[in-house]
Amino acid sequence: MFTLDHLGIVVRSLEDAVPIFCTLTGVCPEDVEFHEVESEGVRIAMLKGNIVIELLEPTRGGTGIANFLEKRGGGFHHWCFEAHAGASARLAELKSQGMQVLTDEPWQGAEGLVFFVHPKSAGGILTEFVEKSPERD
Amino acid sequence: MFTLDHLGIVVRSLEDAVPIFCTLTGVCPEDVEFHEVESEGVRIAMLKGNIVIELLEPTRGGTGIANFLEKRGGGFHHWCFEAHAGASARLAELKSQGMQVLTDEPWQGAEGLVFFVHPKSAGGILTEFVEKSPERD
Repeated sequence: MFTLDHLGIVVRSLEDAVPIFCTLTGVCPEDVEFHEVESEGVRIAMLKGNIVIELLEPTRGGTGIANFLEKRGGGFHHWCFEAHAGASARLAELKSQGMQVLTDEPWQGAEGLVFFVHPKSAGGILTEFVEKSPERD
Repeated sequence: MFTLDHLGIVVRSLEDAVPIFCTLTGVCPEDVEFHEVESEGVRIAMLKGNIVIELLEPTRGGTGIANFLEKRGGGFHHWCFEAHAGASARLAELKSQGMQVLTDEPWQGAEGLVFFVHPKSAGGILTEFVEKSPERD
């Protein structure tokens, strides 16, 4: 049993995209949470249902998100699964199964320890895993 | 509160893709369900977690799935939300909100009444809605 935690979707403008995704999902605009992660050059809008939809707007060029927007015009960017057994254990397991992980260790993200599997070994899809910090659950 | 029902992912070959997605999700290969929808020219593998991952392999050319594979090399194809208030009511509501629906009425799919919103009005993402048939819930 897996748990999809969130889907990351790249958009050109949160201002334009949030009303559209609110209409599609039925989420009230006032329930959308906004964050900015300056170090990663991204503004994020979060719509919460049985999973979280993360709308990602690049705030500067040269980042993975900005390049994705330029190349693909936006759309599905990545998905993130919960690492139920812990991020370090899951990373080691996936590596031993031949998956190409982007870093040798998980790192601290906004919601807990995270790591990524390269799309090349993950069916073409950038795949994140998160071990949620207890205080965030 | 929305419910994402499933994600549709186009792959070139289920034989190659299923082991990869089983590794990523931890789903046992023997728990994967296979279907073929001849009328739509697609073979489907379903991996069940808190949402369903539908891996879609085209069985002939000229379909939307086949064209997507040719153009994009596979990857995220569509997402599907539950139409909690019923498919007909949700379709009418979305249409009145300016969304471009692909058909004027929902039709009977494998899991219940379904309809689609065109990517052009849905943030670039082909969006399906399903009203699950009671016997399937």
